[in-house]
Amino acid sequence: MSLIPLPDSLRPFLHDYLPTQLPDRTFVTLTYAQSLDSKIAAQPGHQTKISHLETKTMTHYLRSKHDAILVGIGTVLADDPKLNCRFKESTSNSISSPRPIILDPHGKWNYRSSQLFTICEAQQGLAPYIIIDTSVNPTLHDIAILQNQGGKFIKRPLIHTSRSDSWKIILSTLYEHGLKSVMIEGGAKIINDLLSLQKSDDLINSLIITIGPVFLGYQGVSVHPHTNVNLNQIKWWSGVQDSIVCARVSTE
Amino acid sequence: MSLIPLPDSLRPFLHDYLPTQLPDRTFVTLTYAQSLDSKIAAQPGHQTKISHLETKTMTHYLRSKHDAILVGIGTVLADDPKLNCRFKESTSNSISSPRPIILDPHGKWNYRSSQLFTICEAQQGLAPYIIIDTSVNPTLHDIAILQNQGGKFIKRPLIHTSRSDSWKIILSTLYEHGLKSVMIEGGAKIINDLLSLQKSDDLINSLIITIGPVFLGYQGVSVHPHTNVNLNQIKWWSGVQDSIVCARVSTE
Ligand SMILES: NC(=O)c1ccc[n+]([C@@H]2O[C@H](COP(=O)([O-])OP(=O)(O)OC[C@H]3O[C@@H](n4cnc5c(N)ncnc54)[C@H](OP(=O)(O)O)[C@@H]3O)[C@@H](O)[C@H]2O)c1
Ligand SMILES: NC(=O)c1ccc[n+]([C@@H]2O[C@H](COP(=O)([O-])OP(=O)(O)OC[C@H]3O[C@@H](n4cnc5c(N)ncnc54)[C@H](OP(=O)(O)O)[C@@H]3O)[C@@H](O)[C@H]2O)c1
Repeated sequence: MSLIPLPDSLRPFLHDYLPTQLPDRTFVTLTYAQSLDSKIAAQPGHQTKISHLETKTMTHYLRSKHDAILVGIGTVLADDPKLNCRFKESTSNSISSPRPIILDPHGKWNYRSSQLFTICEAQQGLAPYIIIDTSVNPTLHDIAILQNQGGKFIKRPLIHTSRSDSWKIILSTLYEHGLKSVMIEGGAKIINDLLSLQKSDDLINSLIITIGPVFLGYQGVSVHPHTNVNLNQIKWWSGVQDSIVCARVSTE
Repeated sequence: MSLIPLPDSLRPFLHDYLPTQLPDRTFVTLTYAQSLDSKIAAQPGHQTKISHLETKTMTHYLRSKHDAILVGIGTVLADDPKLNCRFKESTSNSISSPRPIILDPHGKWNYRSSQLFTICEAQQGLAPYIIIDTSVNPTLHDIAILQNQGGKFIKRPLIHTSRSDSWKIILSTLYEHGLKSVMIEGGAKIINDLLSLQKSDDLINSLIITIGPVFLGYQGVSVHPHTNVNLNQIKWWSGVQDSIVCARVSTE
């Protein structure tokens, strides 16, 4: 689906929530689209259109502002997402796509049959860094295919590590790879974990949520942290259909 | 807590969603305040402050525009709400309080120990109409106390009736009593039922939801219809803290 021009008011609205250079770690933006009843999909394992084209365009604008985009294997298996950036500044000839990061601790993903693989073959996006557990051994063939496109497997101790520690490992891995900002787009497990850990670990720098005015109902995939979480520096935007809330999330 | 002046922009924003005179039934506004993760309370049976004083003032403005305000016994037992209107137009000397309607099919409520009773004694609000099942027999003393204040028990077949039929009975009861508009404020069971029934029964005329930018977490009391529900004529407002979404809900 092709994008539309970014609504003029979104640029100043988002400005304060875009990544800044942090001295010693990767800037984390957590962003997703939810229904009024706080669902990000109508059923587990299904992709659901929630955002209007306006806010979808915003997502691509945000992608252009980040070095990396991260999703969990649940999202990859459900949505087979392209994870590239299709937003182009009118003053520029090129598109700046973020590096896709896939959290796939058990090595479930068949990358070669994904849309992302096809996109990378067509040079329309960057090849993924797939973060797997140290116990998982991809075939030499799979390693070669990925390397050929500029991607890689990154082994880290994830499976027997607490969520809190694994997020520290994941984020410092990104920093080691020169990725100074990451946009985390989901899915539910990742969003719920990050929001829940935020209180103790201060992981999220910006939060940008699109709210689509629809109810997806009881069967939907829910977003809710395990405890309450307060936000600050709150700003709202609304367009022809959706609303967006931005917040700086800091425990400091 | 005293209110603040109604933000100027709220009057035109709400205008199209206020009750109109319907030829043969009571106009229903469903309104509540939720967190980002779609909770209306942090724990079952607890009252939780979600709205800013701005949007709380809006709730009282809305109350002034309705003949009746309806809540379920769950809300009454959890919150002991005042259910009166504290909003006064600067051009007016009097406050127009709506008639409180309590859905208490099993007759669980001890009205005489409630805040609402005290408020009615002080003539700061109208006495409630308490809708009970036909099988429930309040004491003559309780009947007299309520009647003395201008309230009453209304017996209807509710307990062994389907949710859909009971709502038809409840709403036609209001119409018979000359109540041409009702603001339904909750709690969760009622909101979830009404949203779920909306698809088949076309019960809700206006939907007005305040969204407070906070997560109340997993333990919270959730709002989500049993199926998906689409909305139309959507409008967003945002204030210093909260956002409000209005929609006309019609299956026609
Ligand atoms: N509306 C939106 O904005 C949006 C955006 C994205 C996704 N979604 C929806 O979300 C749903 C998918 O969500 P989901 O909860 O099933 O999956 P998910 O969050 O995408 O992926 C969860 C999986 O990622 C791995 N993982 C997560 N955190 C990890 C950590 N700290 N360390 C190691 N591994 C970690 C685990 O894999 P293992 O199970 O192998 O351990 C975990 O089960 C889909 O329906 C999709 O459409 C919606
Ligand atoms: N944030 C907000 O805007 C807001 C507003 C209101 C309430 N709340 C919160 O919501 C919570 C209470 O919600 P809740 O779900 O426990 O209770 P509730 O919805 O207020 O009341 C539910 C009860 O009302 C009766 N009832 C509902 N529909 C009926 C029908 N069609 N016919 C006959 N009886 C009917 C039933 O009583 P029986 O069980 O006796 O059959 C039912 O259990 C509280 O924590 C409160 O703070 C929040």
